[in-house]
Amino acid sequence: MLFSCGPSKCDKAVLKKQSNLMVHHRSAAFLELYESLIVQLKQLCDDHEGEVLVLNGSGSSGMEAALLNFLSSGEELLVIDSGRFGSRFALMAKRMDMIPHLYDVKQQGVVDTAMLEQMLSAYPAIKAIAFTYSDTSTGLLMDPKRIGAFARKHQLLSIMDGIGGVIMNPFSMKESQIDVCIMASQKGFWMSPGLCMIALSPTALTRLNPQAPTYVFHFYEMLQKQKQNALLQYTPAVSLYFALHQALCILNSRPITYWNQFYQRQYERLYTIITEANGCIKQAPSLSRSVLLFTTSKSASRLQQRLEQEFQIRIELGLDDQEDRILRIGNMARYSEEELNALAHALKCCLQEENN
Amino acid sequence: MLFSCGPSKCDKAVLKKQSNLMVHHRSAAFLELYESLIVQLKQLCDDHEGEVLVLNGSGSSGMEAALLNFLSSGEELLVIDSGRFGSRFALMAKRMDMIPHLYDVKQQGVVDTAMLEQMLSAYPAIKAIAFTYSDTSTGLLMDPKRIGAFARKHQLLSIMDGIGGVIMNPFSMKESQIDVCIMASQKGFWMSPGLCMIALSPTALTRLNPQAPTYVFHFYEMLQKQKQNALLQYTPAVSLYFALHQALCILNSRPITYWNQFYQRQYERLYTIITEANGCIKQAPSLSRSVLLFTTSKSASRLQQRLEQEFQIRIELGLDDQEDRILRIGNMARYSEEELNALAHALKCCLQEENN
Repeated sequence: MLFSCGPSKCDKAVLKKQSNLMVHHRSAAFLELYESLIVQLKQLCDDHEGEVLVLNGSGSSGMEAALLNFLSSGEELLVIDSGRFGSRFALMAKRMDMIPHLYDVKQQGVVDTAMLEQMLSAYPAIKAIAFTYSDTSTGLLMDPKRIGAFARKHQLLSIMDGIGGVIMNPFSMKESQIDVCIMASQKGFWMSPGLCMIALSPTALTRLNPQAPTYVFHFYEMLQKQKQNALLQYTPAVSLYFALHQALCILNSRPITYWNQFYQRQYERLYTIITEANGCIKQAPSLSRSVLLFTTSKSASRLQQRLEQEFQIRIELGLDDQEDRILRIGNMARYSEEELNALAHALKCCLQEENN
Repeated sequence: MLFSCGPSKCDKAVLKKQSNLMVHHRSAAFLELYESLIVQLKQLCDDHEGEVLVLNGSGSSGMEAALLNFLSSGEELLVIDSGRFGSRFALMAKRMDMIPHLYDVKQQGVVDTAMLEQMLSAYPAIKAIAFTYSDTSTGLLMDPKRIGAFARKHQLLSIMDGIGGVIMNPFSMKESQIDVCIMASQKGFWMSPGLCMIALSPTALTRLNPQAPTYVFHFYEMLQKQKQNALLQYTPAVSLYFALHQALCILNSRPITYWNQFYQRQYERLYTIITEANGCIKQAPSLSRSVLLFTTSKSASRLQQRLEQEFQIRIELGLDDQEDRILRIGNMARYSEEELNALAHALKCCLQEENN
């Protein structure tokens, strides 16, 4: 049983589609599916006036591609360091010879607009602001509306890593005024990793670099081809597109608030399970609903091992220096009553014995 | 029925694995699968002393990533233009500010070592030679041994797009002395597009740029992580890895010569089917065994449409200016007797009526 933060448990109907008979990506059947995918992704993000791209690749590919298509080497950007994933933007930017300015929010947990203003005064050449909506390494949840409004006010482009954030937590491209939102197939779409989806606002569309130094991830060209009868830049990962389509059909059969509420309830249930088993949750109002971080009195890695070996339950350790202190449970899939009970039972067994 | 050049028909057992229950990519089960994958890929390419990387992404991602990891902007390379796919290397290189020098072999069909020598004299700063083994736009098959030996003699790095070439046509990393061989999951692996595999020779390993301007496709870092207990740079497309593993188990259950011969026989069968239906094959000794190009007396696109609508058979049109003149049938999958008979019947029906 996967209780991890992604890859997470897959939906049976979605997973089954991954074995559908192959079709050619230039066939009418695929083009129809592809067009429906794009419409449905726009609906999911509330991005009807923008565009959405689907990339073969991981979420990280999408983050890197977003930087590559909106910034050039030598250009400056503000990166909000909310943990491992937020700071990854800075790592990528440096690789591509861009100049990231880090704003560390790990202690405070929230973005302070006054601090953003200060940074902008100190580095007036900043062109964009990049951040992670839900950073699963720390559990922090940034406020897209605050960041989007700030970016719009200062004519900065806002690039949001929404991987593992959207669906589980409320988000609308239109309301937040975010320009670029990156999603990944294994987080909230109940399917395998391997696809990355990128929503672009109307503003983002006007700021694309037509000279981006890439062939494969060239957004400007991809969008032009997409308009021409859904031509694609490269061979799409057809099987994963089948699954994504199925997931979107399920997701879009309800308003997005339904899923936000579903994950809120499931979060509360997981919270109770962990605390009743004597796990100590790191909890603050600014925390994401897509992950639960908790500590125990004993070694986290030993607990992870026991859960896996004795109960076939997979949860995740903390990242970097938190590895042996923190445990993480993902809230990005629909767990059954049996699975939740099995988790409760296993955690109690392991933690109560540990305390004796 | 898919008779296309990729995505092509999938093997049932391989396709089924794409719906396997998800596992976490840091679990023991996945690490075991991953290690086996790498060993099996080395065996498939005869690259036991080198290394192999698996990328989430299309074959084109792999081509672009290979250039990015071995060449810097401003550096020169020789690109063999055998058609749409060979010349794509030049397009990518230009995007990344490298300087490609094109050697057009579309007319002659084979690489002339004297011409390579001439180009090297004219452009002595050339550092690498990039080419497509089997260019499915023209059907041309380059000679990796000739190119590999030339590159080695002049201390150039040889980068081969082996997508749709290896497995169907004979290839060994060791014998050919090729340094980089790029493969894609939908060509010869009987599965969905979405994964790209890159074999690196021992020489290639010494030439990797540790400063490559990318986070996601940073080969040097990926190889270091791979050695450290199979850690990965990003979340792998787990479902596709399951399928690739299954395909490799089938492929490696025989020596690679078995598959070369299998595709040679199937090529001859397809050749007969096309000619008996009055298709006119473009055929030369230098042609690849992974694709058959043929012309008919009438519109190619009309024939393609009829085959699809009346017989549910998918074949492909020529690329670029060849679109309405040429048809292409892929030889990258194992067709059943029924499928081959259905193709023969359908082609005869369409082409004989056309001639009346």
